[in-house]
Amino acid sequence: MTYNTLDYAVSERILTLTLNRPEQLNAFTVEMCNELIEAFNRASEDDDVGVIVVTGSGRAFCAGMDLSREGNVFGLDEALEPTLEDMESRLDDPEMVNSVRDTGGRVSLAIYDCKKPVIAAINGPAVGIGATMTCAMDIRLASEKARIGFVFSKIGIVPEACSSWFLPRIVGISQALEWTYSGDIFTAEEAMRAGLVKTVVPPDQLLEEAYRIARRIARNAPVSVAMIRQMMYRNSAEKHPLQAHKIESLGMFYTSREDGKEGVASFLEKRDPEFNGKSSTDMPSFYPWWKS
Amino acid sequence: MTYNTLDYAVSERILTLTLNRPEQLNAFTVEMCNELIEAFNRASEDDDVGVIVVTGSGRAFCAGMDLSREGNVFGLDEALEPTLEDMESRLDDPEMVNSVRDTGGRVSLAIYDCKKPVIAAINGPAVGIGATMTCAMDIRLASEKARIGFVFSKIGIVPEACSSWFLPRIVGISQALEWTYSGDIFTAEEAMRAGLVKTVVPPDQLLEEAYRIARRIARNAPVSVAMIRQMMYRNSAEKHPLQAHKIESLGMFYTSREDGKEGVASFLEKRDPEFNGKSSTDMPSFYPWWKS
Amino acid sequence: MTYNTLDYAVSERILTLTLNRPEQLNAFTVEMCNELIEAFNRASEDDDVGVIVVTGSGRAFCAGMDLSREGNVFGLDEALEPTLEDMESRLDDPEMVNSVRDTGGRVSLAIYDCKKPVIAAINGPAVGIGATMTCAMDIRLASEKARIGFVFSKIGIVPEACSSWFLPRIVGISQALEWTYSGDIFTAEEAMRAGLVKTVVPPDQLLEEAYRIARRIARNAPVSVAMIRQMMYRNSAEKHPLQAHKIESLGMFYTSREDGKEGVASFLEKRDPEFNGKSSTDMPSFYPWWKS
Repeated sequence: MTYNTLDYAVSERILTLTLNRPEQLNAFTVEMCNELIEAFNRASEDDDVGVIVVTGSGRAFCAGMDLSREGNVFGLDEALEPTLEDMESRLDDPEMVNSVRDTGGRVSLAIYDCKKPVIAAINGPAVGIGATMTCAMDIRLASEKARIGFVFSKIGIVPEACSSWFLPRIVGISQALEWTYSGDIFTAEEAMRAGLVKTVVPPDQLLEEAYRIARRIARNAPVSVAMIRQMMYRNSAEKHPLQAHKIESLGMFYTSREDGKEGVASFLEKRDPEFNGKSSTDMPSFYPWWKS
Repeated sequence: MTYNTLDYAVSERILTLTLNRPEQLNAFTVEMCNELIEAFNRASEDDDVGVIVVTGSGRAFCAGMDLSREGNVFGLDEALEPTLEDMESRLDDPEMVNSVRDTGGRVSLAIYDCKKPVIAAINGPAVGIGATMTCAMDIRLASEKARIGFVFSKIGIVPEACSSWFLPRIVGISQALEWTYSGDIFTAEEAMRAGLVKTVVPPDQLLEEAYRIARRIARNAPVSVAMIRQMMYRNSAEKHPLQAHKIESLGMFYTSREDGKEGVASFLEKRDPEFNGKSSTDMPSFYPWWKS
Repeated sequence: MTYNTLDYAVSERILTLTLNRPEQLNAFTVEMCNELIEAFNRASEDDDVGVIVVTGSGRAFCAGMDLSREGNVFGLDEALEPTLEDMESRLDDPEMVNSVRDTGGRVSLAIYDCKKPVIAAINGPAVGIGATMTCAMDIRLASEKARIGFVFSKIGIVPEACSSWFLPRIVGISQALEWTYSGDIFTAEEAMRAGLVKTVVPPDQLLEEAYRIARRIARNAPVSVAMIRQMMYRNSAEKHPLQAHKIESLGMFYTSREDGKEGVASFLEKRDPEFNGKSSTDMPSFYPWWKS
């Protein structure tokens, strides 16, 4: 599998997924949308991938939707009149998928379902979909050259890529509103102060910083890590901790009689563990525990 | 429309809404409750209003419920025995509205439904309802003279104005609990460290700082801004990002063929956009997408 | 009532609950689980207890599950094949309680239902269940000697004690994922920067700092404080602020005609209040307002 808009490179259990249209500042297209979905689905089931690092080729991370194209840049069919009922009853109807549903949101949902941790290494401008797609990733790092902007209200449209769900969870409702109301471009430093990015580093240290975090994760039990990703996002969104208790109990039950045996033994024997469980084939029987 | 307890002044697309009982430190009354609800509903549909700034007249923001009055200061009818079932089945029954339902909460719900961003400019003491009502506003700024207190447990009652929903979203559950457990009055500086207020400025710079933020918002597409306000609060409270995706897809679809056309054109032509969409009459057909 | 694994000491309305297996670094056992549940339930209904402070005896807070024991250290019956359906339909079946359900989660649920504020005074290493159990507590303070680790993925298991519900609420989803993905041990200082602990103090000042906060709470109306605890956690997890409004309205209604009368009178008379309401017997008639 090769991609026209991406580079997909695996090394030492880390996938580096590079947005790769440097001449266009990695501007987002429908093709990039579909390739990103394919790449996240593939990495989710690839046992050689322990962690995913997403970055941009050249000087930008992603300058937003590619507005240089003729006609409807968003890929929407303006002749339609979609309703909320359509979104509920025929979400996966090809007409909806290709002509109504937000491309960025389709990528974010693929990231959400992924079994692997995702780290954004924001190397330069990240604007519009370039900013919102990182909200669905787990950890964001930024180069000092990064500039970020949720610019939608400035061009008369609305935030997407599920950012109205993710962004307030990351930076709080007040900051999420201020950035999306104003549409202003802000610095990596401001992003860090607000908690959107974890660390700001010089440009030439960005990938190494991402790999440093990735390596600390990639050594751990793949089944545990995949379970943690889905447990944290999904259980924390439930109304009551009891729902978390149900999933955690089953998770503890099944992992403790598989990788957990090796984990405890290695701990008591003061040696590194060797986990056999694969996230592609060895998830506990109740996984996935959600519908749709 | 004039108000007894408020001042309502619009200039350059910014409404300054001033709590205006300075002799009583802007203490909250049932009349102020009803006038605030009317004012937020009015501003929500007034296309001359792009952003709302709320402040207090004189040296206080709002010193809390007006306890100087005779009888039941909270306006509740103590002869009633309301149940949770009453709250579900006859919430809008006049008896419930006038004699049982929390006045502060009725104001917060009007703010929640408002189409316009709301900035609190906390110019002095903000105590009890004076503190909790700001939690339903989007961004809080404070003068160095502001003092804030969720003092309910000190006088044997409970927090209100929907603050048990808003406050943990703004400052986290741990800080929300500490402030409401202790009932202590704290400084603007402490409020900023905890994330309750964005900025602390000298008293004479407070309104200008609020207007500076307001102007950055008021220039943007009114339909986009109104959509963003409701999308961020409502979608982020959903269990799954899929719900955000449905609303964002429809939002993107409809705005991109109206104001979005002008927005993209102005961007490509490197000129300021001129948006025609009004939030009073031109919201997308699926708005409001929620019930009740 | 005496405990084998705990010390339970009440003084001046503050319960100090000490994990008391210092030779084993207070390692968690099934017995400790059951004693903790009993102790939180007891304190919840004990009117002599206004606030609970939890700490560890000796140099550790809690070094995690006691892995030194023979056989299945987690107390799970590996011959079973529990399903999500079992968790829904027979959660309180003794087989589920004793052989499937996570012991840490059962403790966290007891803390969640408790009427009294809970402050964790983390005096030393808090690892695994030693870390996750503190997430269900309201406020965390740490000694400079505290070291914290959500080490589950390192030994092939998953986080528990309802931490997948609590931890993202406290430190945000991004930090929660990073800590649980990596399993790394981190310092009290890092915990404070991330918002997991409120304050870091020298070891000999830890309990005094906890008591200082506890005293500010213990003087307030017990019914108010118990209501606040349940309102903040439960209402903030609802989808819409309207649900908070319903509960707050009833809470305000009933407290304002009991302790609220004394509270307002004492405020107007500039004297300390004397609240009569007890959280054991005088909660408003609609409490508890939740099912299960």
